Amino acid sequence: MKKNVITISRQFGSGGRTIGRELANRLGIPFYDKELVEQIALESGFSTQYIEENGEHAPNKNRFAYAFSGTGGHGFLGGMTTADFLWTIQCNVIMQLADKGPCVIVGRNADYILKDRKDCLHVYIHADEDFRADRIVRLYGESEKSPMSRLQEKDKRRTINYEHYTGRTWGKAANYDISLNSGVIGVSQCVDILVNLCQDD
Amino acid sequence: MKKNVITISRQFGSGGRTIGRELANRLGIPFYDKELVEQIALESGFSTQYIEENGEHAPNKNRFAYAFSGTGGHGFLGGMTTADFLWTIQCNVIMQLADKGPCVIVGRNADYILKDRKDCLHVYIHADEDFRADRIVRLYGESEKSPMSRLQEKDKRRTINYEHYTGRTWGKAANYDISLNSGVIGVSQCVDILVNLCQDD
Repeated sequence: MKKNVITISRQFGSGGRTIGRELANRLGIPFYDKELVEQIALESGFSTQYIEENGEHAPNKNRFAYAFSGTGGHGFLGGMTTADFLWTIQCNVIMQLADKGPCVIVGRNADYILKDRKDCLHVYIHADEDFRADRIVRLYGESEKSPMSRLQEKDKRRTINYEHYTGRTWGKAANYDISLNSGVIGVSQCVDILVNLCQDD
Repeated sequence: MKKNVITISRQFGSGGRTIGRELANRLGIPFYDKELVEQIALESGFSTQYIEENGEHAPNKNRFAYAFSGTGGHGFLGGMTTADFLWTIQCNVIMQLADKGPCVIVGRNADYILKDRKDCLHVYIHADEDFRADRIVRLYGESEKSPMSRLQEKDKRRTINYEHYTGRTWGKAANYDISLNSGVIGVSQCVDILVNLCQDD
């Protein structure tokens, strides 16, 4: 099964980004995560910080809530909300990256944006809340909020964003070719399974 | 990751049963499908045909709709619906089988019934409708209904039964440890992935 482009959707704290990066390393292909944000920033005029905070989150209902970086602001969005404008740019950037050649793309609803390409493998990484709560504290440190409320809030925002822009249900197995519980299977074995899948013809 | 009991939940026509049988063969452990139905028949007094038609389908809302086989009817269900009575027996039989030793169990909401056992691997097999429609015609032949309406009806009944008895959403990736699209990955490679997962320690 030859798959050139692998999209990784993930629950917050599940290790999806780590799995994606390692998969890209093992396959020797580009990994788009921060680079994706930077490209969207370049094309949209939004700051990378704004994109990181809003690109996978609940759509902003404020039609005129601009949040431009100093260098690339438009001040006019043709009646679009900033969130819708960001979504349009995000779709274009992801389709262009997939056209450039084999790669791994993490997040940003890429599974939906690239759903009509036959050479994509769509992956979903999830894990139980306890596993994820423990992992985000180890990786990102403590914060004022409890780890459980941090991940529930992030999951909720991603779910709303996904359902708003795709009309699909977030986390439904049928949206993906393979879904893995990284807490049960282990991050490293998840990578092994995906490497094997992508290397088969 | 040592997993003794593998539960396979599946969309109709996805090849989940075939994958389960082959997995059990490769691991050299029992495969419970028909045997499960026969055991439930023995303990409940229902006919195997009734269990096959109702055990994974929408719960019967008729409190006194008996459907006993000639040999084992009770005629009294203590106020339970026949569907609820069948569910109770099904839970007991599945828990007893899991206690007996390593095995593969297909369907019958076993993922939920055994959710608290740590030595289970919960698998979900799904595929696109076109793949499944084509497969059910090849396996089960044509019928008066179109293959698409056959599988949509069966999926709907399983969904209602699952949601009624478990309070969970059918087909949600987070309910399972691994979910595979057999149409994309291929039935034989699904088996390989699962054999590898179960053999690792």
